[in-house]
Amino acid sequence: MPFRQAQWLLRMNGLGKGSGLGKGSGVEEGALARGDSRTSGFSTGSKPTGSEPCSANRRSVSTPAPSPGMGRGMSDRPRFEFSVAATDGRARTGAIAMRRGEIRTPAFMPVGTAATVKGMKPAGVRAIGADIILGNTYHLMLRPGAERMERLGGLHGFMQWDRPILTDSGGYQVMSLSELAKISEDGVAFKSHLDGSRHMLTPERSMEIQRLLGSDIVMAFDECTPFPATRERAESSMERSMRWAARSRDAFDAGGGHAASAALFGIQQGSMEEDLRRRSSEALAGIGFDGYAVGGLAVGEGQAEMFRVLDFAVDMLPAGRPRYLMGVGKPDDIVGAVERGIDMFDCVLPTRSGRNGQGFTWDGPINIRNAKFAEDMAPIDPESPIAPWSRAYLHHLVKSGEMLGAMLMTEHNLWFYQRLMAELRAAIAEGRLAGFAEAFRARYCGGKA
Amino acid sequence: MPFRQAQWLLRMNGLGKGSGLGKGSGVEEGALARGDSRTSGFSTGSKPTGSEPCSANRRSVSTPAPSPGMGRGMSDRPRFEFSVAATDGRARTGAIAMRRGEIRTPAFMPVGTAATVKGMKPAGVRAIGADIILGNTYHLMLRPGAERMERLGGLHGFMQWDRPILTDSGGYQVMSLSELAKISEDGVAFKSHLDGSRHMLTPERSMEIQRLLGSDIVMAFDECTPFPATRERAESSMERSMRWAARSRDAFDAGGGHAASAALFGIQQGSMEEDLRRRSSEALAGIGFDGYAVGGLAVGEGQAEMFRVLDFAVDMLPAGRPRYLMGVGKPDDIVGAVERGIDMFDCVLPTRSGRNGQGFTWDGPINIRNAKFAEDMAPIDPESPIAPWSRAYLHHLVKSGEMLGAMLMTEHNLWFYQRLMAELRAAIAEGRLAGFAEAFRARYCGGKA
Repeated sequence: MPFRQAQWLLRMNGLGKGSGLGKGSGVEEGALARGDSRTSGFSTGSKPTGSEPCSANRRSVSTPAPSPGMGRGMSDRPRFEFSVAATDGRARTGAIAMRRGEIRTPAFMPVGTAATVKGMKPAGVRAIGADIILGNTYHLMLRPGAERMERLGGLHGFMQWDRPILTDSGGYQVMSLSELAKISEDGVAFKSHLDGSRHMLTPERSMEIQRLLGSDIVMAFDECTPFPATRERAESSMERSMRWAARSRDAFDAGGGHAASAALFGIQQGSMEEDLRRRSSEALAGIGFDGYAVGGLAVGEGQAEMFRVLDFAVDMLPAGRPRYLMGVGKPDDIVGAVERGIDMFDCVLPTRSGRNGQGFTWDGPINIRNAKFAEDMAPIDPESPIAPWSRAYLHHLVKSGEMLGAMLMTEHNLWFYQRLMAELRAAIAEGRLAGFAEAFRARYCGGKA
Repeated sequence: MPFRQAQWLLRMNGLGKGSGLGKGSGVEEGALARGDSRTSGFSTGSKPTGSEPCSANRRSVSTPAPSPGMGRGMSDRPRFEFSVAATDGRARTGAIAMRRGEIRTPAFMPVGTAATVKGMKPAGVRAIGADIILGNTYHLMLRPGAERMERLGGLHGFMQWDRPILTDSGGYQVMSLSELAKISEDGVAFKSHLDGSRHMLTPERSMEIQRLLGSDIVMAFDECTPFPATRERAESSMERSMRWAARSRDAFDAGGGHAASAALFGIQQGSMEEDLRRRSSEALAGIGFDGYAVGGLAVGEGQAEMFRVLDFAVDMLPAGRPRYLMGVGKPDDIVGAVERGIDMFDCVLPTRSGRNGQGFTWDGPINIRNAKFAEDMAPIDPESPIAPWSRAYLHHLVKSGEMLGAMLMTEHNLWFYQRLMAELRAAIAEGRLAGFAEAFRARYCGGKA
């Protein structure tokens, strides 16, 4: 029997019949492979404003320039340059160029909470198509600690991921994970869930920690408004987050060399209220950020309500900047959010649910523990990097509590997410997003795997 | 900073400065790389005897023949051919040629209990130099089940390992892991530790299960005599194991196509008694096996007692056949056993202790959880495949309970074991085993990492 694994290794090395990721997204991936230098970039100074015009309402990918090659040094690359290659309705596709590499958008960022994408080596994360990963400030400040991380050379060297890393501000997790969190105008005082030690997170300390970690995209320190919230609570929380956004901007800009090579994103709040979201957006644009996140969603409001908010919230953000929907989400959440103009996503779902035996397929998620898979010789997906192994084998591993089960399911799910993003990018570039999204939903939400 | 990981990948692809495994073992590895066809092979018929002469008391590696290439099909390869390329004292180095590939000896077999080497993909196990892995009959017969495994195409396809697999007989684990095991002349009746279901293992059923799994090297069904044992118990246990060995031989030979492509090993018992070991060896040689294992050691007797037994037990076994010391052991156990003529080993130590944070180094084992490693920027070993990551990172991962910590420590430890085997093979081939072993012990057992 010829071993499918060997075929996969050949494909990974470019020796076999076409790469998995390239298939089905020929225009975009081909352009990227040739070192496409897009023409609609927004170069940013040290303190950007939110008022750049968006000149990127084109469908076609620009003519590729000669490849800059892999040898281009970090210092030759822009600090932060977002270019939109094509739009389709409110959706956009393009890329963010940064010192440590390019981020193709719409992008999904695998979550690497504690300086590791759980169960994967960095080379594997990269191999399935991730351009950027996310690190969690709250976890890393407690263990190994921000100052220790700096002494160890920063998060990139520590975990051996040499491409961009986005770090959250710690604001969300300190409220959800720590003990006895007390919020004040200054920030949040809390006790570690690990050892009960006392800590304080402020906008200034969050910026310092993210600098010590060596983050490429730093998130402003904010309060993720709980759901549901009274209008009064939503308003006061948003207003404090905007004051913290200004303090974050100042503290980030005081970061010296780090500020000159990293980017800072602001976070829109305002709960489910259109006018609060608008005021938040205006406040953020007035401060000026490299990118803008939509915060305070995916907190239990449900997909319909989230989409209702995105319908007005996204267009409020500066069009020439990347828009990042934090903590989202399920594959169908992502498709709907891309249709509404979102460029970046992160979520623990593919990794966490993979460890629990949930696998994503184009026909919807499956629970590999189900007895019907015990003798299923088919791969979970014929294009998946884990296609050499059968569903029966995955079933056996996960049922047996074997580490390899969690490893393979994680790899598959992250591949599925990256493949979905590649398909979305191709569909936008080719002006067929509506048809792609409709076909995706019909199969993913209607079919049974 | 240039990333060490990239350098490692280059080395693995043969594009960098020399391969890790080849270093320090140039003669042997070089010969293997050229497809050395050894001249002192023992071709075996369907039922070998133990009386072949050993014509391999040479120091030099034979002149390499033209490479047979990797494309040689399974059916063109010998069923089982053990060739000794060189001896040094009682130690030997050579290779076992089988349908699914060559096993360089002395060999260490990583343990893949439940159809997975815990925490590693098969490609990784192969990349660090393993020629063969071990599967556990007891675990696999319970989950996923032997008949199911056959329906799924056998263990090789199931787990995607295309090289030789040795399976134990289940005799040892049924006594140590199952509930209510009752031994009789027929075999062992027991209840599964997983679900309490009732099962029976006999020599005939063990051979059938190992055939259904598609094992390449099948172990005879025996009783691992407990330690300590009275002389009477040791004698009666050994005698029953010899009757079971004959029944195993008959049942294996009735296995049709499987018997024509796989090998069967007998297992010497006799506890710590020289005369019992001799009678056991004579009984096994009379039956005739492809290889011979030393059983009933590494059961709590200690290294000195184990070496005392090996001093007389190994030479009793047919010299022209591989000798396998089951369940051993620590690196210094292996060095001492190789000096006493052992060719094959298996042990859970590198994998199990790796998951617990123990890492092997030439200066002895270290516990990566120790606080002194929290800011240690050095790799665990500069030649290790996990050298891109610092001891500080491993410390962080293991302390944090991260899966990647167990994965990296496992990979390192299995690499360490394979590297030790490669060094032993090179030392034997070059006639300098005594010096190598002395230097190894001085550093490994005397040094503090």
